[in-house]
Amino acid sequence: MSGQPADGPPAGEPDGRRRPGRRPGSADTRGQILAAARETFAEKGFDKATVRGIARQAGVDPALVHHYFASKEGMFVAAMELPVEPESLIPMIVSGPREEVGERLTRFVLTMTSAAEARQPVLALARTAMTNDRMAAMIREFVTHAILNRVAEALQIPPIRTEAAFAQLFGVVLMRYVVKLEPLASVDVEELVELLAPTIQRYLDDSG
Amino acid sequence: MSGQPADGPPAGEPDGRRRPGRRPGSADTRGQILAAARETFAEKGFDKATVRGIARQAGVDPALVHHYFASKEGMFVAAMELPVEPESLIPMIVSGPREEVGERLTRFVLTMTSAAEARQPVLALARTAMTNDRMAAMIREFVTHAILNRVAEALQIPPIRTEAAFAQLFGVVLMRYVVKLEPLASVDVEELVELLAPTIQRYLDDSG
Repeated sequence: MSGQPADGPPAGEPDGRRRPGRRPGSADTRGQILAAARETFAEKGFDKATVRGIARQAGVDPALVHHYFASKEGMFVAAMELPVEPESLIPMIVSGPREEVGERLTRFVLTMTSAAEARQPVLALARTAMTNDRMAAMIREFVTHAILNRVAEALQIPPIRTEAAFAQLFGVVLMRYVVKLEPLASVDVEELVELLAPTIQRYLDDSG
Repeated sequence: MSGQPADGPPAGEPDGRRRPGRRPGSADTRGQILAAARETFAEKGFDKATVRGIARQAGVDPALVHHYFASKEGMFVAAMELPVEPESLIPMIVSGPREEVGERLTRFVLTMTSAAEARQPVLALARTAMTNDRMAAMIREFVTHAILNRVAEALQIPPIRTEAAFAQLFGVVLMRYVVKLEPLASVDVEELVELLAPTIQRYLDDSG
C-alpha cells in the first residue's frame, strides 16, 4: 500500500525522498511538487487529494511524483515536514512484544519530540488545526487513515482505543512543549515513560 | 483563600458574580474590571497580576474589585469566561470516594465540554496559548496554581500525576471537538468515561 517505492521512476533512479541530493529533472522539481501538494492537501483534504491532481497542480507527469514519493502518505509527510512516516512508524508500533507496545510507543514519541526540529512541524500543524477547520479536516484525515486506523487494524482493537492513546500522547507533548507545565516540561523522558506507558499499554492491549 | 467572598462589599450587596443583575456602582463597573483584568493578566501573567493592580488599571477602588470577585482566581475565570471555577471544581474532585475520583472527574469534564458555550472559551484560551508565549505563560500559571497543584496537594500525589491526567482529558477534548477524530467525536459521554476513567484513576490514585 504505502510501503516501499514501486512505481518505475525514470531511469531507475533511487527514491528522491531518501537521497534528496540526487534530483533528476529540474533542480526544483521536488520543491514544486511539495508546494503543489501543500496547496492541494489544504484545499481538498488528505482523502480527496490524489497523486494525479498534485502532479497536475505542479505541472509535472504523475510518474515523476511517484519517482520522488512512494505514496500519498509519503508526500504528505514531506510536504508538512513531519518527523516520521507512517510506513516506518507503524511497523515500530505493531512489531515487537505486544506487552511492551505502550512502553515502545511512549518512548518513541517522547524521544522524537525531544528534538525541536522534529516537534516544530508537528506543533505548527496543530496550530493550524486549532484555527482553521479545513486544515483540521486535512490533519484528521491523514491521522485517521494513515496512522490510527492502521494501527487499530494491525493490533485488532477498536479505533477509539488508538485515538485515546493519541490524545494522551499529544496532550502530553502539548503540555510539555507549548504550555510548559512544570514538572512535566523538565522531567526526563524515562520518568515520563514510566508514568505514561501503562496508560498507552492499556489502550493498545488485546484485553482492553 | 479563594473560598467564598469575604471582603466587605459596599453596603453589604450580594456578590455580583452570582447575581449579575444587581450592580452597585456604575452599570459597567464589572465589565470595566474584567477588561482591566484581561489586560493585566495578559501583560503580567496570572501569578504577578494583583487585585490592586487590576483595580488601578480599571480606575476603581480595590474594595470594589473584591465586592465583585472573591479572589484573583474568580476574576480570571470571569475574565476568560471559563465554565467552572477552581473553588467549585476542586471540592468536586477531592470529595467523594477516592476510588471513584477518575470516573467523577472524567464524567465532569466530558459533560461540561459537551456544551458548546462551556467549551468555546476553553478552546479559545488553548488557541491563544498555541500561538502566543505570553498567553501560554498566563494559562500555565493559572492552571498550575489554581488547579493542578491544589488537587495534587489535596490528594497527596506528586503534581506530575495531575498534569498527566490533565493532558489526557485536554487531549481528548481537543481530538473530540477540534480535530474531530471519529469515532471519538461522536461516541457518547458514558462510553468515553468507561474508556478513560481508569487512566485518570491510576494517575490520581494513592497507590499510583
